[in-house]
Amino acid sequence: MSHNSFGHLFRFTTWGESHGPAIGCVVDGTPPSIPLAEADIQTWLDKRKPGQSRFVTQRRESDTVEILSGVFEGKTTGTPISLMIRNEDQRSKDYGKIKDQFRPGHADFTYWAKYQGIRDYRGGGRSSARETASRVAAGAVARKVLAHLLPEPMEIRGALIQIGGVSISRGRWDWAETERNTFWSPDAEVVPQWEELLDKTRKAGSSVGAVIEVVASGVPVGLGAPVYSKLDADLASAMMGINAVKGVEIGAGFAAAVLSGEENADEMRIEDGKLKFLSNMAGGILGGISTGQDIIVRFAVKPTSSINQPRRSINAAGEEIDVVTTGRHDPCVGIRAVPVGEAMMALVLADHLLRHRAQCGLE
Amino acid sequence: MSHNSFGHLFRFTTWGESHGPAIGCVVDGTPPSIPLAEADIQTWLDKRKPGQSRFVTQRRESDTVEILSGVFEGKTTGTPISLMIRNEDQRSKDYGKIKDQFRPGHADFTYWAKYQGIRDYRGGGRSSARETASRVAAGAVARKVLAHLLPEPMEIRGALIQIGGVSISRGRWDWAETERNTFWSPDAEVVPQWEELLDKTRKAGSSVGAVIEVVASGVPVGLGAPVYSKLDADLASAMMGINAVKGVEIGAGFAAAVLSGEENADEMRIEDGKLKFLSNMAGGILGGISTGQDIIVRFAVKPTSSINQPRRSINAAGEEIDVVTTGRHDPCVGIRAVPVGEAMMALVLADHLLRHRAQCGLE
Amino acid sequence: MSHNSFGHLFRFTTWGESHGPAIGCVVDGTPPSIPLAEADIQTWLDKRKPGQSRFVTQRRESDTVEILSGVFEGKTTGTPISLMIRNEDQRSKDYGKIKDQFRPGHADFTYWAKYQGIRDYRGGGRSSARETASRVAAGAVARKVLAHLLPEPMEIRGALIQIGGVSISRGRWDWAETERNTFWSPDAEVVPQWEELLDKTRKAGSSVGAVIEVVASGVPVGLGAPVYSKLDADLASAMMGINAVKGVEIGAGFAAAVLSGEENADEMRIEDGKLKFLSNMAGGILGGISTGQDIIVRFAVKPTSSINQPRRSINAAGEEIDVVTTGRHDPCVGIRAVPVGEAMMALVLADHLLRHRAQCGLE
Amino acid sequence: MSHNSFGHLFRFTTWGESHGPAIGCVVDGTPPSIPLAEADIQTWLDKRKPGQSRFVTQRRESDTVEILSGVFEGKTTGTPISLMIRNEDQRSKDYGKIKDQFRPGHADFTYWAKYQGIRDYRGGGRSSARETASRVAAGAVARKVLAHLLPEPMEIRGALIQIGGVSISRGRWDWAETERNTFWSPDAEVVPQWEELLDKTRKAGSSVGAVIEVVASGVPVGLGAPVYSKLDADLASAMMGINAVKGVEIGAGFAAAVLSGEENADEMRIEDGKLKFLSNMAGGILGGISTGQDIIVRFAVKPTSSINQPRRSINAAGEEIDVVTTGRHDPCVGIRAVPVGEAMMALVLADHLLRHRAQCGLE
Repeated sequence: MSHNSFGHLFRFTTWGESHGPAIGCVVDGTPPSIPLAEADIQTWLDKRKPGQSRFVTQRRESDTVEILSGVFEGKTTGTPISLMIRNEDQRSKDYGKIKDQFRPGHADFTYWAKYQGIRDYRGGGRSSARETASRVAAGAVARKVLAHLLPEPMEIRGALIQIGGVSISRGRWDWAETERNTFWSPDAEVVPQWEELLDKTRKAGSSVGAVIEVVASGVPVGLGAPVYSKLDADLASAMMGINAVKGVEIGAGFAAAVLSGEENADEMRIEDGKLKFLSNMAGGILGGISTGQDIIVRFAVKPTSSINQPRRSINAAGEEIDVVTTGRHDPCVGIRAVPVGEAMMALVLADHLLRHRAQCGLE
Repeated sequence: MSHNSFGHLFRFTTWGESHGPAIGCVVDGTPPSIPLAEADIQTWLDKRKPGQSRFVTQRRESDTVEILSGVFEGKTTGTPISLMIRNEDQRSKDYGKIKDQFRPGHADFTYWAKYQGIRDYRGGGRSSARETASRVAAGAVARKVLAHLLPEPMEIRGALIQIGGVSISRGRWDWAETERNTFWSPDAEVVPQWEELLDKTRKAGSSVGAVIEVVASGVPVGLGAPVYSKLDADLASAMMGINAVKGVEIGAGFAAAVLSGEENADEMRIEDGKLKFLSNMAGGILGGISTGQDIIVRFAVKPTSSINQPRRSINAAGEEIDVVTTGRHDPCVGIRAVPVGEAMMALVLADHLLRHRAQCGLE
Repeated sequence: MSHNSFGHLFRFTTWGESHGPAIGCVVDGTPPSIPLAEADIQTWLDKRKPGQSRFVTQRRESDTVEILSGVFEGKTTGTPISLMIRNEDQRSKDYGKIKDQFRPGHADFTYWAKYQGIRDYRGGGRSSARETASRVAAGAVARKVLAHLLPEPMEIRGALIQIGGVSISRGRWDWAETERNTFWSPDAEVVPQWEELLDKTRKAGSSVGAVIEVVASGVPVGLGAPVYSKLDADLASAMMGINAVKGVEIGAGFAAAVLSGEENADEMRIEDGKLKFLSNMAGGILGGISTGQDIIVRFAVKPTSSINQPRRSINAAGEEIDVVTTGRHDPCVGIRAVPVGEAMMALVLADHLLRHRAQCGLE
Repeated sequence: MSHNSFGHLFRFTTWGESHGPAIGCVVDGTPPSIPLAEADIQTWLDKRKPGQSRFVTQRRESDTVEILSGVFEGKTTGTPISLMIRNEDQRSKDYGKIKDQFRPGHADFTYWAKYQGIRDYRGGGRSSARETASRVAAGAVARKVLAHLLPEPMEIRGALIQIGGVSISRGRWDWAETERNTFWSPDAEVVPQWEELLDKTRKAGSSVGAVIEVVASGVPVGLGAPVYSKLDADLASAMMGINAVKGVEIGAGFAAAVLSGEENADEMRIEDGKLKFLSNMAGGILGGISTGQDIIVRFAVKPTSSINQPRRSINAAGEEIDVVTTGRHDPCVGIRAVPVGEAMMALVLADHLLRHRAQCGLE
């Protein structure tokens, strides 16, 4: 058991606070002989990097990853891969004001209460979304593992499908579109509506939530295991553990409650000598084990808790106060959760691929 | 790592198939000196037992639990508690017909594909909801642990809040009501509507899904840990791992996506010298750590996959077939998931209480 | 983490007390499609069974194992295998006298102190060597896994090489001999000396210790992993965890301290196109990873603590007492540790084989 | 499961190769509010540092530790503590010659065989004793945890008790002496004999083994747990996992085999109202649980495999070669293992203290 590790056979351990000298992770269990360079990881960190659109925080971090171990002459050696990202933009601003305040919706109070009054309050410390850079870095290694072990390429893609009350249209879904706008929206037409909504939200000093969908295609049949290593349970844990996430669903998800048995159970036929499901309400998982269909996961991100409006709260002395968060903040943290959701999908699948190989082998 | 274990410090391992001689679990990590008798466990098994209403399967099992170890002179000794429930109603019916068929929506195909063609097809084998009796039994021990270690009693209660498209009214919520109807509905008025819906559904040979809400009250502040032992992530894993569950949410859940930052972040005041939150959108968890408010989890259960209508499928030989499930089946498996959800909540909280005690102590 | 589980991918959890209704274990992670019947396990249990020679306790147990799950139509299904052995010879003798006494050399005091005064004192409860029957049963499954996954058969054999001050002669080592005497001695000539020693020891109401050697032949190269999954570290844990064991060594072991570098480092040559080591001081493990040579482990078992002589001790009330253990006891518990050591070797190797397959594959 | 992590609740993960940019570890599970500075760790690293006597390698490393996370304003926050030590003395010497050679007694062959021909051969890569600096750093944190949680100070001390065939005299044992000579010898008189032996050994281009004893005093009763979390089993794993260790024993150890039951079982009396054992053959552990007496562990270190004499071996191409290790090497690597053994003792005890607190609490 480790509070700060995730996965079993492909396992990573993250460390670091928002305003410490660096953040990073140790990735353990990587098979040997996989080509891996810093550029393979940097690509995904760049995708996640803050400051790319006017709707995400302007903290300027190059997020440059260093590989400190586990790679030799361009290939993984099977030993732990230590990745480090220096924190650059730790402005020595005055935190005196907020150090004893509990911001509503933040982890300030719970960290303080759990850890006997000790917490690194600067920028949220360990609870900062900055930690997700480590997930993305580890996720990049996971993608390499999947590519190395699978005969056919697996594709893991995320999309933002809802901001506040405005959803994309599934009829206009185009994966290529997600690369063309700063929202990772698969629907080009919704983009101006979201821009308008976010401009309005920011002007009001407010924030909104979002829903992200992550899809893995080309997943082999058989990943996951009864009963407490179910693939869907591990994905639920992976996504719910991302900062600010409040709900996770697989396939039809909550909508399955209103479906009939006929609508919900995906029928099967043979096409070109291969099994073909006629629908994918299951989201690619039955009995906790992958079916070979696309794995489809959605998760909801709550609105940013840091808003420019006075909120009622208390401080460490037990006094009632008003908290006002000044400075710029993302009106919608959900946007930046897209590459993080993709990374978590890759990490869960790489772990389960090794687990499946251990018990059942890979032909 | 263990495919069939759950939890870390308070940990249980389940075993058994639907039609084998017995099912059971081993509960490890229980503190010593806790009074525990079979009756303490039987109470909760009886609550879960099939055959109590006309809407759940008529399999007649007494579900009598035996304690085989770990209890001496009426108290836990700190050694593993082995619990066994004999399977009684394993009718030797002819399974010849379904042994090579993959029922749509079931785990038949995925088990077959993962485990190289070997599976115990009788009654779903290991993937049967019968396994949840072990969860309920282990959950009963978890409740004793919580009661033993906490100065104030914790209450864990579940309710069915939606069947198909028919939801309860939150305005009529009355916990006492859940003990009075066979649906665990907190709203008496919805019960006749559900009965009508289920009668209709059964007559049509169909099935419907459901949504369950589980609430834990009296949870101490500080349970959970950053970043990969978050309480919400573990609850998500626990609930998503229950048979047929397709979605999990905490507090406001997916609805958080449409809230504004002001609506979503729960404000704090001091009342009678104590912290009081003015709302509970967070569902009792911030930054992965319990706030002391009620922990609120909801999960969606898909409609029963076994329906009395022919469905297109394939068999192990790769031939296209029609599958018809005969015999009586629950039109809504979600009903029986209520005590299972409660058990999983108790199991997660007991584990986290021990984890918190390990790192931070309990005053 | 689980106090009562061992292994990672091939993992078993044991439960049960000496005088409870039964003991048993749950074996998880077994690959599917391996032929397995109760007889495959019973063979090894029979070998371990007490009462076979006049030098081991006369408790009469048939030690009949029941497979309760995880096997279907004669083959493993990949789901957990629950094994149970009923306790038959739990004489309802009067334990009133010893229930508050702490026998020197036994775990009476430490269990009592750790578990807040609660312990099952009957026959040693959980600390009884009876628990090792579960290890032997799980070890039998491990042997099947090794046989199933390896192209060439692996052989795991144990021998008693020392009782008290009397050691076997390595020059007379004959594995076949271990099957012919009740000591598992590889040296026929030492047997009468041991019989004499044990007769004398028993008459004196005393006991003696022993040393066991376990050898695995046909182990593939590459099992184990740096740095905290070293094969030798896991074997040390496995053997030191057997009741009454006080020392473990690999290959040259403690004798390596007096060797020179030239003597100790095993040289390599090519013979018939294959690597051949010219000696095996390493005991088949270098850098925590198997070399392909025989894996050689030795462990020391302390003399039975139950002796027929009054010993000074205290009781639970903190009073000084004299403890006299009446009845028959093994003059040398080490004899019965031979099949247990073999089982632990099989369990460690099966686990590491799956771990190696997960990360590196098996050609 | 993690190949490169050790411990359960107090857990550390190490990374890094001998000639990479840095080595380090992540320490997870530390309780909050413990004062911790780099100097607290540096003290122990300095003690271990190479180059302090003429009998240990002259690699010049300052071994300066940096705390990258988990400490805020001089106290632990309960979040992971990342520790990094830059490698400074990575001479860019020509490794061309040895890159394909397998040095006898080293892990060259096994890494190569396990990891598909990929290994960082520079200075032994991951298998280098350099990794033990991470253990010592983590051990320093463990000592702080023990000091913080225990009412009475625990003392953990190591001593070198044998080099080659020359042992210390127990009659002259003086802990203070271990601080006065570069061998950590508790016996001043043996030091000149060891110096002479090592001078002779070095001149012969050879090496010798050693035995280390580590003693923990002030250990509370009750650490450890049946049956697979036994304190002695975990200590055995911890010590056997140190580079070059081939044997581990507790208390009387292998000598227990020749003791009688009367000699071996430690009797108990009451002295000043407290339990007093009359001997400590058990080495402070009964039934896998600490008794409150000194915990005594010994381990044997094999002679350095790098010697200045030609040895027969093979290379990666399967050709027979002679390997000659040039340059200076420790004639006895066991000397440097003393602080590593102490660190592992601290790490095991800190972990077990948290595990015990989780299940049973600490008064």
